[in-house]
Formats: sequence, C-alpha cells, structure tokens
Amino acid sequence: MTMNVYIKDLAGHVGGEVTVQGWLHNKRSSGKIAFLIVRDGTGLVQGVMSKGDVDAGVWERVQQAEYEASVRVRGLVRADDRAPGGHELGLTDLQIIGRSSDDYPIQLKEHGVDFLLENRHLWLRTPRQVAIMRVRDELVKAIRDFMYDRGFVNVDTPILTGAIGESAGTLFQTDYFDLGTAYLAQTGQLYNEANAAALGRVYCFGPTFRAEKSKTRRHLTEFWMLEPEMAWCDSDCNMRFQEELVSYLVSRALERSRAQLEELERDVSRLQAVTPPFPRISYDEAVDRLQALGSEIVWGDDLGAEDETLVAQDYDRPVFIYNYPKQAKAFYMKENPDDPRTVLCDDLIAPEGYGELIGGSQREDDYEKLLARIREQGLPVESYGWYLDLRRYGTFPHSGFGLGLERTVAWVCGVHHIRECIAYPRTLNRLSP
Amino acid sequence: MTMNVYIKDLAGHVGGEVTVQGWLHNKRSSGKIAFLIVRDGTGLVQGVMSKGDVDAGVWERVQQAEYEASVRVRGLVRADDRAPGGHELGLTDLQIIGRSSDDYPIQLKEHGVDFLLENRHLWLRTPRQVAIMRVRDELVKAIRDFMYDRGFVNVDTPILTGAIGESAGTLFQTDYFDLGTAYLAQTGQLYNEANAAALGRVYCFGPTFRAEKSKTRRHLTEFWMLEPEMAWCDSDCNMRFQEELVSYLVSRALERSRAQLEELERDVSRLQAVTPPFPRISYDEAVDRLQALGSEIVWGDDLGAEDETLVAQDYDRPVFIYNYPKQAKAFYMKENPDDPRTVLCDDLIAPEGYGELIGGSQREDDYEKLLARIREQGLPVESYGWYLDLRRYGTFPHSGFGLGLERTVAWVCGVHHIRECIAYPRTLNRLSP
Repeated sequence: MTMNVYIKDLAGHVGGEVTVQGWLHNKRSSGKIAFLIVRDGTGLVQGVMSKGDVDAGVWERVQQAEYEASVRVRGLVRADDRAPGGHELGLTDLQIIGRSSDDYPIQLKEHGVDFLLENRHLWLRTPRQVAIMRVRDELVKAIRDFMYDRGFVNVDTPILTGAIGESAGTLFQTDYFDLGTAYLAQTGQLYNEANAAALGRVYCFGPTFRAEKSKTRRHLTEFWMLEPEMAWCDSDCNMRFQEELVSYLVSRALERSRAQLEELERDVSRLQAVTPPFPRISYDEAVDRLQALGSEIVWGDDLGAEDETLVAQDYDRPVFIYNYPKQAKAFYMKENPDDPRTVLCDDLIAPEGYGELIGGSQREDDYEKLLARIREQGLPVESYGWYLDLRRYGTFPHSGFGLGLERTVAWVCGVHHIRECIAYPRTLNRLSP
Repeated sequence: MTMNVYIKDLAGHVGGEVTVQGWLHNKRSSGKIAFLIVRDGTGLVQGVMSKGDVDAGVWERVQQAEYEASVRVRGLVRADDRAPGGHELGLTDLQIIGRSSDDYPIQLKEHGVDFLLENRHLWLRTPRQVAIMRVRDELVKAIRDFMYDRGFVNVDTPILTGAIGESAGTLFQTDYFDLGTAYLAQTGQLYNEANAAALGRVYCFGPTFRAEKSKTRRHLTEFWMLEPEMAWCDSDCNMRFQEELVSYLVSRALERSRAQLEELERDVSRLQAVTPPFPRISYDEAVDRLQALGSEIVWGDDLGAEDETLVAQDYDRPVFIYNYPKQAKAFYMKENPDDPRTVLCDDLIAPEGYGELIGGSQREDDYEKLLARIREQGLPVESYGWYLDLRRYGTFPHSGFGLGLERTVAWVCGVHHIRECIAYPRTLNRLSP
C-alpha cells in the first residue's frame, strides 16, 4: 500500500509513489493521454496518465470521473517547475469514491454573485475562495498568537444579554424563557472593561450582530470582531498597540500566506509598506482637509465612508483619525481634558479604499461624567448599574478597540466585497445556506 | 521615574525599585507597619511599609485606601520564598487612583452563589475566578495551536441560520428582516462538512446556543464548542484524534497553568494519568455492565449522566463509549456496516464524574441512506437541500466531533459547576450581568 499524502506535502516525496485523496478539479483527455487536476483542500496537483500504461478498467474510470467527483489517485511524484505547486503525478491508478454529475452547479465559467451565494457550500471549493478562507485562518491565528504572547487573557463575552448596548434599534432579539427579551450583543466591550479590572489585559474575539439595514460592501449582519481592553493604557498607548497589531497581521500574511495572495493576484508591494508608525491626524485637521477638497462636512459630523476614503488616499498605510466630537461618538468614550467638546478616541482607516478597520477609545473612568453622558443620551441608567460599578470600585484608566475581522481580511486579500471574507455571509437579503 | 512592572515579572527586578499598578486586595495595619496585598490580574504581591520610612501623606493614604481601590505603589523588589509568588515589595509610595468604598459587595467571606452571580462583574476579581479564567484562556490557545499545527483551517460557521438544525424545539429564534425567522445555531457541524469538502480538515470554535430547560451543573444555554471535521477520516481515526487532542490539552495545562491549578487545589496526579490511548467500550458492553450494576437501562436507550458516571468510574482517564443505537442518535451519523441497528459514533466521558466532554461520529455519506434517515425523523427535507448536495457531488468518508469548552475547563480545573467556567454564564434563570 502506498502512503496517503496531502498535496502541500508532495515536495517530501519526489521519486516515490503516493496516494492523494481529493476531488477532480479539471480534466483533459485525448484518446491516449489524460491530464487530471486534483484538489484536496491543501493545494492542486496535475496528474498525467497514458492509456497504454494502465489497465483498461483504470482508463475507463478516468473517462467516467466527473468534475468534483471525489477520487483516490496513485502516482509517482515528479518535480516539475512548470506545474502549479511545482510537482506532477505520473498516475498509475484512479478510484472514484463518490460520483458527481453534469449538473454540478458551479462550472469553470463566470456566474452571477447571487447564484454563487446561493451555492456557497460549493462555491467555497473554488481556488479563489479557498485562498480567502486560508488567509482568514492565518489572520485569526496571528491575532491569537499576538494577544497570547503579550499576556492578554481571552475572556469570551456573552452574546445573549439583557438590556445593555449602544442602541436597541439595531439589535436582534429573542425570547428568553421567563426572563423576557434577550438581545444579541453588538459588542463585548462593556464586559471587557469589567474583565480588565480582574485580569489586567483581556480580549474577546467572536461573532457580533448588527440588525442594520445597511446594504454596502462593508456591512454584514453577523461578523467577527476582536476587542482588546487594556488597564492602565491611555489613548496614545491604545493607538501604539493598534499599529503594532495591524502591522504584525500584515507581515504574518506576507510571510505565511504568500501562495494565497498570489492566487488572489494581490499587489503585495502595497502590503509591504504597512509598518509602524502610522500617520495620525486629528478630527479637526481631517475636517479642514475634507472641506478644502469640497466636502460638505461640518465640524460635529461623523465621517462617512467616502470621507474616510478621501482622507486615506494620501497615505500608503493605515491612518489614524483621532479625537472626534463627543456628539458623533458613543457615551463611554473619555472626555478630552484639552478640549471637552471632543473625546479621546481613534478610527483606523485602511488604505486603498478599504475603509475603517478599527474604532477605539480611552473609556470614561469618572463616575459622574459617565452617568451624565448616559442620561444625556437618553439611555436607561438602571441597565448600566454593573457598568457604573466599575467606576465606583477602584476606577482606573483604560482603553480598548474593536477590529473587524472581515474588513481586515478584505483589505489584506484585496477583495472588494466583505461577503467573500466569511464562509456564510449574512446580509439584509441572505440567511442561507 | 520608576518602571511599571507586572507582578508576574517581578522576578526580573529583584533589588530594583518598580511601580506596580493594580487593586488593593487586602490590608493589615498596626500603628507603625502596614501590609498591603496588591493584585494586577497577573498575580498578587505583598507590600510592606513602615510609618517611619515614609512621608506623613503617604502613610495617611495607606490608611484611607479601601479594599478594591485602584492604586499605584512604588517599592523595592525583594526575593522572599515565604511570599505568594516568591517576592515582596518594600513600599516607598502609594497613590490612590480610584477610591472604593465599604459597601464593596464582595467581601473576603462566604457569599451565596446567587449573590455572587448577580455580582459576576466583581466576583471575577477574586483569585479563584482569575485562576479559572486563566486556565480557560490557556486551553483555548492550546486548542488553536493544536489545530493550526496539524493543518486544520479555522472556518467560522454562522450563528444565524435558516431552518436547519437537530431539533427546532430547543432553538432560540429571532425575526430577520423580510426573510422571516432566523435560529441561533446549536452546532456548526453541517457547515463544517461542506467546508471539509473545500479545505480537507477544518474546524469551527465559537459560541453555541441551546434553549433547553435543563437545570443541571453541566448545562448552559450559551457555551463554546470546538467542532473539527476531517475528510478521509473514519470513526477509528476520529477517536484517535480526539484522544490526542484531549491529552494535549491536559498536558498543556499541567505545563503552563500550574500556578492556577494550585490556586484551585486541583489534584494534578489525576490529570497526569491522562495519556493516550483511552479505553474504548462499545455501547453494548456499557449496557451489559450498567445492567449488572443494577441500572434499568435497556438496549436502545441513550446513556444518562448517571450512567456515564457509572461507566467512567472504572477508569483513570477519559473513556470512549462507541457505536450507539441509531434511535438514540442524530440522523447524520453513519450506519455501522457490521450492525446496521447502530451508528459509527463515540461519546468521550471524563473521569471523576465530569461527564461527557465530546460527542463525535463518522457522517453518513450515502445519499439514499441519509435521505431516508431525514424522512424517518420527520425533518423537513427541503431544508437539507444543500447538505444533501455534499452526497450528490463527490461524497467522501468524513468524521468530526464537538468538544464542550466549559466542561473541559471544569474537569481540568476540578470545578464542580460549569457556571464558573465561563465569564458570564447564561442559564434558565440568568441573563445578567
């Protein structure tokens, strides 16, 4: 019996006979010679078979095998620089494990995106989607390594929550036994703040839900978000941490996902420019610049996606815009002592039009100021009892942020729409498969 | 200015003066000498201050500082084998950053569990809870490392899903725009199977929801689950992978979480016994043994928690019970060719009464058999169209399992109730904080 080998590991078996298990990705056959491309999730390999070299039964099975049939092939590994992956198999056998059929929905041609999304469970088998999923996996692991190596404690925050949140209008809700309504969390931040008082530096990293009726290429109703929270860290410390993290993620993809970025035809020179420090401009400067460019923004407005793209176009790496007006941001952000009309916060905007990767802030640690802000925004004070406790019992300077995983994957991969950056995207119009 | 140092890093600063930022965990003071215990999330350290050595203002602040006030202390690091963590600070200064008060809810005494859960945001600050959260963090990272090092691709599966699932009776549901009802996923398995056909070996690891009215020490309505899925892996391969994973997790905790296991007074000799291979007994043998022990179980019943504990008590490490009757298990499990009344599955039962850690199976890969099972169980065939596609287009042998994170943490930590093994437990009666 020959050894089962993953396609990615063929380099270690040159000159030997191996078995590869996978799916038939493509086939060309003349009367005498057949070229098969097999994929196994770790890569693609071309196999070559001559009719004269094999039994009639084997040749017959090669003729039968359809696109996306699952197969077990045996062959001799040959180094071949021209082949994808650098190796070729001289095939001696093929077994069909599971037939496919001519009605396989996704053919090697262009399809409309609605059709592809409806067949997402099969679309994921194509090389471009495999590459995106592998880059996502690498970035997830890079995030976990980065946080762990710096002593952060991963504390998972709850999805099902009582009344608390930024704004109930954009929350999904469900009945919860005899306790009334539960909401699906938009953020773990408030819990992270409690956890930071227990453990120092913490993070959560899980799915997040927004019932927003947004139909842009940057919005999903369910997406993954990394949210670190750091005790004894001010807004400047927060931005320094963010640029270190983002630079690390990009360098890790360049180091370990090179084959995938090539598959995606990503211009890696754009990623190589991403090193700290990142440029920082204040909200005030951003508004001046936008007005000079003809934008109708006035001081006090939040920046829209177009504004962000306009500001970011001057830079070859992500840019921080910091210290926004209080009225444009959430109640928990710390008042700026140097300009109390503003708060100590930052948005990190990706280059090349990929938009906001991160929103972060130092948190308001003064009990009275926080209470006043909750009241000003008309939020129910009674729901924030435990959150206010953090300012009553040993309050402390702390900061944190949220990094959107799919937006980061889209930027690193150079993918236009974030719906391709999660396996089963959920949008206003899509809940399946 | 002295250097800010984490308590865990004091060993590198013996003989030097440092600043530690944290919270006052305990204080004893006579008229002339004060002993303070400070925690910072990375550990505890005792500081000693003599009235005669410091300014009157400093001594006054030490008298004022309450339990759980946040403080910045400066002092000389001394090695001291008797001290917790092996170091002591000779204090020269203390600043109070955030006052606390005498009504701090959680005192250094016994409280009832309902009270503690109601104050979970503060309860998490206590050493036992810090230790559990740190072990959980270590196990999460160990899982991520184990999967990554073996070439698995993390593919996050959706929480919000259409009609598909094991049984709608135990699902939370929410309105989803104009698309009707969305359910919160109980498992990512069916999606994992599609992903395995694209990427070979995959896993999801995220929160999972069960709207079950269970009130046991082993049930939560929201919990985290690791779910690997492996193409070209049969039931035996599946069990071998499970025992390798679980043994690795235990060895990793023994290696890197020793201080936390000591804090929890865990008998580590029980954990040291956990090495592969794990014993395996068939469902048939388990029933015979249970009947001999006086259980009323009859062939065909699923094993209850008490049955599992009875079977597991004979072993010093987790035990597999494999190949249950079809009627006791889910529709997607593969029929056992050697005994078609049963399916190719396994439950992995922890020792010491901690119950089921894992449920796994080889999946039914025959289209007609799977379709028949869906119909037999009265499930809506139309909801399983995309899942059935996986058997229509290149079906393949594959297996996978689900490992409950909180149950694993409870077992490793020796914690009786899994509500302490997640930061903000969600149960039938609890949705806050």
